[in-house]
Amino acid sequence: MENFVFSNKTELIFGRGVEQQVGQKVSACAKKVLLHYGGGSIKRTGLYDRITASLRESGVDFIELGGVQPNPRVTLVRQGIELCRKEGVDFILAVGGGSVIDSAKAIGVGVPYDGDVWDFFARKAAPEATLPVGVVLTIPAAGSESSNSMVITNEEGLLKKGYNTVLIRPQFAFLNPELTYTLPFYQTACGASDMLAHIMERYFTTVQHVDVSDRMCEGVMRSILFNAPILKDQPENYDARAEIMLAGTIAHNDSLQPGRIGDWASHGIEHELSAIYDIAHGAGLAIIFPAWMRYVYHTDINRFVQFAVRVMDVDLSFGDPEAIVEEGIRRLEAFYQRMELPIRLHEIGIDASRFEEMAQKAAPRGAFQVLDAGDICKIFELAL
Amino acid sequence: MENFVFSNKTELIFGRGVEQQVGQKVSACAKKVLLHYGGGSIKRTGLYDRITASLRESGVDFIELGGVQPNPRVTLVRQGIELCRKEGVDFILAVGGGSVIDSAKAIGVGVPYDGDVWDFFARKAAPEATLPVGVVLTIPAAGSESSNSMVITNEEGLLKKGYNTVLIRPQFAFLNPELTYTLPFYQTACGASDMLAHIMERYFTTVQHVDVSDRMCEGVMRSILFNAPILKDQPENYDARAEIMLAGTIAHNDSLQPGRIGDWASHGIEHELSAIYDIAHGAGLAIIFPAWMRYVYHTDINRFVQFAVRVMDVDLSFGDPEAIVEEGIRRLEAFYQRMELPIRLHEIGIDASRFEEMAQKAAPRGAFQVLDAGDICKIFELAL
Repeated sequence: MENFVFSNKTELIFGRGVEQQVGQKVSACAKKVLLHYGGGSIKRTGLYDRITASLRESGVDFIELGGVQPNPRVTLVRQGIELCRKEGVDFILAVGGGSVIDSAKAIGVGVPYDGDVWDFFARKAAPEATLPVGVVLTIPAAGSESSNSMVITNEEGLLKKGYNTVLIRPQFAFLNPELTYTLPFYQTACGASDMLAHIMERYFTTVQHVDVSDRMCEGVMRSILFNAPILKDQPENYDARAEIMLAGTIAHNDSLQPGRIGDWASHGIEHELSAIYDIAHGAGLAIIFPAWMRYVYHTDINRFVQFAVRVMDVDLSFGDPEAIVEEGIRRLEAFYQRMELPIRLHEIGIDASRFEEMAQKAAPRGAFQVLDAGDICKIFELAL
Repeated sequence: MENFVFSNKTELIFGRGVEQQVGQKVSACAKKVLLHYGGGSIKRTGLYDRITASLRESGVDFIELGGVQPNPRVTLVRQGIELCRKEGVDFILAVGGGSVIDSAKAIGVGVPYDGDVWDFFARKAAPEATLPVGVVLTIPAAGSESSNSMVITNEEGLLKKGYNTVLIRPQFAFLNPELTYTLPFYQTACGASDMLAHIMERYFTTVQHVDVSDRMCEGVMRSILFNAPILKDQPENYDARAEIMLAGTIAHNDSLQPGRIGDWASHGIEHELSAIYDIAHGAGLAIIFPAWMRYVYHTDINRFVQFAVRVMDVDLSFGDPEAIVEEGIRRLEAFYQRMELPIRLHEIGIDASRFEEMAQKAAPRGAFQVLDAGDICKIFELAL
C-alpha cells in the first residue's frame, strides 16, 4: 500500500424527496446563486419548478445559466464566469449530471482567476480558490458530485481535458434516486459503464497489498453488475436506482482509492474518442476497456485473474490463467451488451482513419502499463 | 435503503513516517495545544520524543496531560477541561488509541460548556461546540480517529456511556502502521475484534436493499479475517498492519453505513460488562457477539445466511439455513480463538452473579431485534 492523504468534505443528502431541502441548504451558505443546468429536461420533469420554488421559499437570490451540453464546452464556462463576476454570484448550484457539475466546477475556479480558465486544463496555471459548488444530481454516472475532478471540452482543436484538485469537491450533493426514473435506458447504461470504469481504473494497479480497497472495489462493482440490468425492465425500481446512485458517488469520491495508484489510460483514450466523435463517454468506455484489458493484462496477469474470479465469478484454476482472464473480459463485454452498449468501434460507425491522430493526442497514458502512441493505436485496432 | 445524510471531514494522512509532519499540521490550526496521551508506552517507543520534537520545530506552544486509562475516566476528562480553560488551549492533539481519543473528544466538548461534561453522557444536555481534535493513532481498534462517537466511564456507579455527534469527528488523523509493530498480540486481537464488531453492528440490519454497503462491509470484514491472524507470527508485517489500520478507520467512519440502521446491542451489552469487570472491550465483544447472534438470528435468518456464505465462506444450500447460520457463527468463534481471545465468560472467570444488574443497566438495546433486560440476561447465559 502506498502512503496517501484522503479527505472529502462533500455532504451527501440521500433519499426520496431530499431535493425539497435545497433552498434551506443553499440559504445557509450563499447570498447570490448561479443556478446552472443543461438542456431543459429538468423543466420537462418538473424538477426545475421544485428547485426554484424551494430557493424562493428560502429567500435565496439567484440567476440562471442553462444550456450545458454533454461534453461541456469551455465557451459556456467562460460565459458563466463573466455572468458570475457581473452579478456578484458567491455560490453555484448545479442541477444535472456530470456535464453540468463539471461546467459549474470550471466556472467556480474561473471566477477568482485573472487569466483564461482554459489555462488550468492546459496546465499553464493551478487554481488557488473557487466559488463553492452545490449539486442536485439527476444522472448517476460521472461521480462529479463528490469527486475532485472536472472534464471540459475546448471546441477549438477538439480538446477534451480533465483537471483534478480537492478544491473543487462540491460542498453538498442532493441524491434522490427517484429523479433518475425518467432517464432513458441508454443514459442509465452509459452511467453504469462510467462508474464501473471509475472503479476499474483504480482496481487495475501495480501497487501490491491493497486488500481492503480491492475488496471494497470488488463489492461495489458486483453491485453495479447486479443492479444496473434490473433497470432495463424496471426503470422505477427504487431499490436498484438507489444502489446505482450510491455506487456512482462512491466509485469516484476516492473512498475506493486508499493507497492505490490508478491507471486512467482507458479514460484518457476514450476522451480523445468522444472529443472527436461526440459519442457518450460511457459508450466509449464499453468499447475501450475490453481492448485495453486484452492489450495490458500480461503486465500483471494475477490481478486480472483476481478480477475474473472475484468480480466476474469465473472459477479459479491454476492451469490456464489466460483463459480465466479472457473469460472475465468476455463476461464484462456480455454485461455491456446486456446494457445495450456497443463493444466495438465498427458498431457505431467509427473506422481506423483517425486512430493515429487520437493516439498522438492521448499519449503517453497509463500507470498499470505506460502506453505510447503506438500502443494506443493497437488498442484502437483491438477495439475496431 | 433508508434516506441518509453523510459527511466526514476527517483528513487521513496514512503511511510510513507520516507522524513527522504533525507539528507542521498542528501549527496551521492551533495557537496553544493540549498533548493528550495514555500510560507512557509512547515514551518507551520514542513516539513521544518524535511528536514533541516535531511540535517544537514548528513552533507549537503545548502543554501535556497523560495518564488516560483503558475505559477512559470522566475524572481525567474533567481535569483536562480545567487545564484547557486555565491555559487557553485551542486544540487537542490525542496521541494513542481509542481511549485517548475519546478522552480528548470529551475534553473538547467540555471546555466550551458551562455545566459538567457528564451531562452529555447522561443525556441532560447536547454539545453545541468543541475544541478541534487531531490524532496520531497507535492502536487500530476503536475507529475513534474518524468516528462521530466517544465512550467515557464514570467511576461513580460504574457507568460506561457513549455519545455520538458529527461535531466530534477529528480534524485529521495520522495513521502510520509502523507505530503498531510493538503492540502486544492481545491488543492487536482486541482491536481486530472491535473493528469487526463495528462492521457487524452495521451489517445486521433489518433494512432491506442495502447491497452496495452490504458488499463493502463484507469485503472489509473478509480483509480483517485474513490479515489479523498474520500478525501473530509477523508483528512487523507492514502490509498486514496497514490493512488492519485502514480497516479499523473505515469500520467506524460511517463509510459502511449509508442507508442502514445499525443494531449496537452487542456494544451496549459489552459496555456493561467491561464497566464492571474492566476487561478489554474487544475481548468482551468476542464473548457477547456469538451469543447475541444465536439469540436473535431468527428475526431475519436470511441476513445471517448471507453473512455465513459471503463472509465466512460457508457453502450455500437451501435445505437447512439454521445449520448454515450455526456454521457461520462457529467459524467466527474459531477466528476469535485463533486470535487468542476468549469466547465464553467462564474463560475469564465471570459467573452469573451480576447478569441481572448488567442486563437492567443495558436494557433496552438493539434495532435488529429490540432486547429487554430478560433478553439480555439470556444472552449472558448463552455466553456463560
